[in-house]
Amino acid sequence: MKTLRLELGARSYPIHIGRDLLARADLYGPHLDGRQVLVVSNETVAPLYLDQVLGALAGYDVHAVVLPDGERFKTMQTLSRVLDAAMDNRLARDATVVALGGGVIGDIAGFAAACYQRGVRYLQVPTTLLAQVDSSVGGKTAVNHPGGKNMIGAFHQPACVIADTGVLATLPERELAAGLAEVVKYGLIRDPDFFDWIERNVNALRGRDAQALAYAVEQSCRNKALLVSEDERESAARALLNFGHTFGHAIEAGLGFGTWLHGEAVAAGMCMASDLSVRLGWLDGATQQRIRDLVARLGLPTAAPGVVSSAQMLELMGMDKKVRAGRMRLILLRAIGDAVVSDNFDRAALDATLDQCREAR
Amino acid sequence: MKTLRLELGARSYPIHIGRDLLARADLYGPHLDGRQVLVVSNETVAPLYLDQVLGALAGYDVHAVVLPDGERFKTMQTLSRVLDAAMDNRLARDATVVALGGGVIGDIAGFAAACYQRGVRYLQVPTTLLAQVDSSVGGKTAVNHPGGKNMIGAFHQPACVIADTGVLATLPERELAAGLAEVVKYGLIRDPDFFDWIERNVNALRGRDAQALAYAVEQSCRNKALLVSEDERESAARALLNFGHTFGHAIEAGLGFGTWLHGEAVAAGMCMASDLSVRLGWLDGATQQRIRDLVARLGLPTAAPGVVSSAQMLELMGMDKKVRAGRMRLILLRAIGDAVVSDNFDRAALDATLDQCREAR
Repeated sequence: MKTLRLELGARSYPIHIGRDLLARADLYGPHLDGRQVLVVSNETVAPLYLDQVLGALAGYDVHAVVLPDGERFKTMQTLSRVLDAAMDNRLARDATVVALGGGVIGDIAGFAAACYQRGVRYLQVPTTLLAQVDSSVGGKTAVNHPGGKNMIGAFHQPACVIADTGVLATLPERELAAGLAEVVKYGLIRDPDFFDWIERNVNALRGRDAQALAYAVEQSCRNKALLVSEDERESAARALLNFGHTFGHAIEAGLGFGTWLHGEAVAAGMCMASDLSVRLGWLDGATQQRIRDLVARLGLPTAAPGVVSSAQMLELMGMDKKVRAGRMRLILLRAIGDAVVSDNFDRAALDATLDQCREAR
Repeated sequence: MKTLRLELGARSYPIHIGRDLLARADLYGPHLDGRQVLVVSNETVAPLYLDQVLGALAGYDVHAVVLPDGERFKTMQTLSRVLDAAMDNRLARDATVVALGGGVIGDIAGFAAACYQRGVRYLQVPTTLLAQVDSSVGGKTAVNHPGGKNMIGAFHQPACVIADTGVLATLPERELAAGLAEVVKYGLIRDPDFFDWIERNVNALRGRDAQALAYAVEQSCRNKALLVSEDERESAARALLNFGHTFGHAIEAGLGFGTWLHGEAVAAGMCMASDLSVRLGWLDGATQQRIRDLVARLGLPTAAPGVVSSAQMLELMGMDKKVRAGRMRLILLRAIGDAVVSDNFDRAALDATLDQCREAR
């Protein structure tokens, strides 16, 4: 097991990464406040792993709520189900929420913990690659609004992240690839050596080589933890983590949440942001091709789905949380490992990217 | 106009108190971030005061959402209406929410501002005495759950409080009295001179003497601002502000939200907490009588409604946010101006208070 630490003063916390961690009582115990625990999971994950977690929590007053699986359930209605479960089980403010699942579960359970009694503790126990490398770390919690991804939420840091890389063995192929999109993101925005490493290890990663996956999780969390420590509430550096996400969120909302996985949409979004960077003269075409090739080799889309029109993409992108003073801001690339936030881009170039980077209908 | 300041480091803010403030553009302007503003009000307040506020915001991109009036609408469903309005009007993260109304509007609008795009600015423009003396100050926001008052919410400080005491002229009698309950609370928990002043000014307050009401608002806000500055997230001193509230919240939930006004329930709750303090030997009977007399002279209830049973009260009190390690904690009195948080009380004494302090059915 490796343990990284996200440094945020009094709200610092450990990120444990390794095999066979789910059932380790010693990892949970130090972070539980009172005796009451509410485990939040979903119908896919609970049959596989809930028992192990309940075993680790033996001796506590534990309740579980099992939600339907999928991004389309990341709604205020599902949030209410978690809050109802907290009330029904008479959870007090010293209770702890445990999020056992992928990014959707982590985001909903974390937001429920943020607002139940104005804030209780929670632990992230991510079971997808995407959640292990990205969403479980950093304290962003949210549900979707039909008009936009993650529009309703809170910054609420977990007390601990327990990333059991052993569970990646049961992850569906498509989910694994989606997680790799966020891994590539860290290489692109700040870690060129890591990008090189991913290029060299595509087969090991897709083949679920345990050591390769563990290193991918560790290096991703290290990058994320550093950015979040610098800028918890995204006034500057943290925004780089949104590389490909303004395009990606628009794809997710435009198709209807859950049609494409978040990581798939981000993969296409990163290729689109690279395309725009080339059109603006910031990035060279050979590097763009290198990025597209890697994304494609990982089994991920390199363009937006044909059924979402450019006009719809543009309107949805306008609802992005990075919009300021009416201006859209995007993360663009100057080189692999060198990203910037900019609102200084040509509208015609963006239109060209939206028109050109799309799959045939 | 008087201006107090709530000191909270980078989140400090002014509390403006005086007549004819609603329409003063100079009070809003410095606290607006971008150009977009969403005014949240209700069907009672909007016809009276919305135009003045819109006038003060001339030149901004202003939208308004008008909610039904009453505590029974302080729900997740109504919260969603505000969030939908924010989305429909494409509010960006640099938009500002303005809460124009009583405590219910302030709590819902503030919570919406806390979670829309993970947090946008908001201004409190309280139009009831209760909101001016208590709920608009201090950053507690929430909606109710059917099982408990204010169970879902956030700590989110406003950027400014604009308390126009002129609007108290249109306040219904019952709302005025309810607000006075919280005024009395400050005297009881930490300001014996203020308690004496209230006793001497009952007629002026109930007669809406402008100077008396302005002083009551000012001195209440001064007391509240000091306690919140000391302890924003209620780990210690701030809990004293809950004097009478554990009993009061149980009354509100037991009757169904909106049957009794919050201030009415708190008035009865303060008398019950005083009764328990006497039973425990902490407070003398003469002081208890003095408290009951003042509450009664203000036109407020001094006991719980007969229709809520002692058992129901006890169960609802067990859902209080102050419960820790399974133990209920109550605010009790040693003298006027001297309150303490305690979980060290005799259960039989509490039962006696619940049985004795109730109106005939």
